[in-house]
Amino acid sequence: MRVEIWSDIACPWCYIGKARFEKGLESFAHRADVEVVHRSFELDPSHAKGEVAPVVDMLAAKFGRSRQEALAMEEQVASHARSEGLGYRVGDRDHGSTFDIHRLLHLAKARGRQDELLSLVYRANFAEERSVYDTETLVDLAVEAGLDEAESRVVLGDADAYAEEVRADEREAAELGATGVPFFVLDRRYGVSGGQPAEVFTQALEQAWQGRAITPLAGVAEDGQSAACDTDGACEVPQAGGHS
Amino acid sequence: MRVEIWSDIACPWCYIGKARFEKGLESFAHRADVEVVHRSFELDPSHAKGEVAPVVDMLAAKFGRSRQEALAMEEQVASHARSEGLGYRVGDRDHGSTFDIHRLLHLAKARGRQDELLSLVYRANFAEERSVYDTETLVDLAVEAGLDEAESRVVLGDADAYAEEVRADEREAAELGATGVPFFVLDRRYGVSGGQPAEVFTQALEQAWQGRAITPLAGVAEDGQSAACDTDGACEVPQAGGHS
Repeated sequence: MRVEIWSDIACPWCYIGKARFEKGLESFAHRADVEVVHRSFELDPSHAKGEVAPVVDMLAAKFGRSRQEALAMEEQVASHARSEGLGYRVGDRDHGSTFDIHRLLHLAKARGRQDELLSLVYRANFAEERSVYDTETLVDLAVEAGLDEAESRVVLGDADAYAEEVRADEREAAELGATGVPFFVLDRRYGVSGGQPAEVFTQALEQAWQGRAITPLAGVAEDGQSAACDTDGACEVPQAGGHS
Repeated sequence: MRVEIWSDIACPWCYIGKARFEKGLESFAHRADVEVVHRSFELDPSHAKGEVAPVVDMLAAKFGRSRQEALAMEEQVASHARSEGLGYRVGDRDHGSTFDIHRLLHLAKARGRQDELLSLVYRANFAEERSVYDTETLVDLAVEAGLDEAESRVVLGDADAYAEEVRADEREAAELGATGVPFFVLDRRYGVSGGQPAEVFTQALEQAWQGRAITPLAGVAEDGQSAACDTDGACEVPQAGGHS
């Protein structure tokens, strides 16, 4: 079974939801047969690349609150994070375009290090308040995740590198009806939205597991021309040219 | 959309089917949004690791044919391969346990080189009749696919490395009802069995694309407690502790 998780690294509920999902997965009997794939989503896709500002200032401006009120909102989210055992500092986290971070996460995916890098980026952003909008910080995190430093720099420096992969993920999210994140899709069949409690994920995994079924479109029936090899070692040999 | 392809590298129809699928994919409008994952399947899972013998001898013994008749069977399959532009030599291909090759393909998957390695292994086995049951040949192919030589040797030398991943793929194939390969599963929803003509794959891709739909299990409704961040930049802030 495969679980795809659309998220933005700037999204606190994605950070918390990842931990809750992993806890829910731990309680799922078939966890060894679950593959997790992270997909890109930008909460603020029109945000200019160069503009980086503290989150609390952005929140205050966006919702017409005082800085004090914005900090209180952050504190509430932080309490949820801490109850999951996650670090969460409040006050100096930056806000900016996450496009380049998603591109780097796609490089990490291609190199089998996606989950590692995402976890490190979340921790840097929320628990350490290191600015993940800074190239050197991202390179450090990439290397820590097991990526090649030179390759990471090339990808970060080339705005086209993995850009299409990020956009394809975002198109898919829209097609699947996601309007926010985290958005969890189980076997492309069931959806869970939000950083739900761990037990909700366990239940969703169980339901999706039971709901597995494949509709045969072609060749599944034994028609004598299936062009397949069977477990008895026999490979069908249709008349030459019959299939081409 | 994701296509999973269960195959065995010893299976001629998997080799031919891969080329036909790729041709079918080329004609599919949304091909940029298709991700292909290769999964392990052993046609002969009980085959002892050390036993390697020519395929034609195995075929002759298995089906009570003469060596000449076995060669004729191979020639028929070869003609299908050649009509797809694939090389296919007949006569000296080896037959053996493919378990270690599948383990190596899982390392390649983890390093983002799975399709490259599978293509090279198929070519070596069918077009070049190099013995893919030989460790040095596999190391050469792994390096050619972009894997690290030392890491490839470690994996090939450790019978447990990626063994669970191979078995998990095989369990899934059984659960999904596959009795032979190649077995194509589109978005875990539609199945195509056998190395079908390219147009069958194009049609299956189109049908699966249209059949995409996600059943919400939790949190997709706007319940005010979805613990998500929306594209307007707002993150829900439920009462602290309410979700944990």
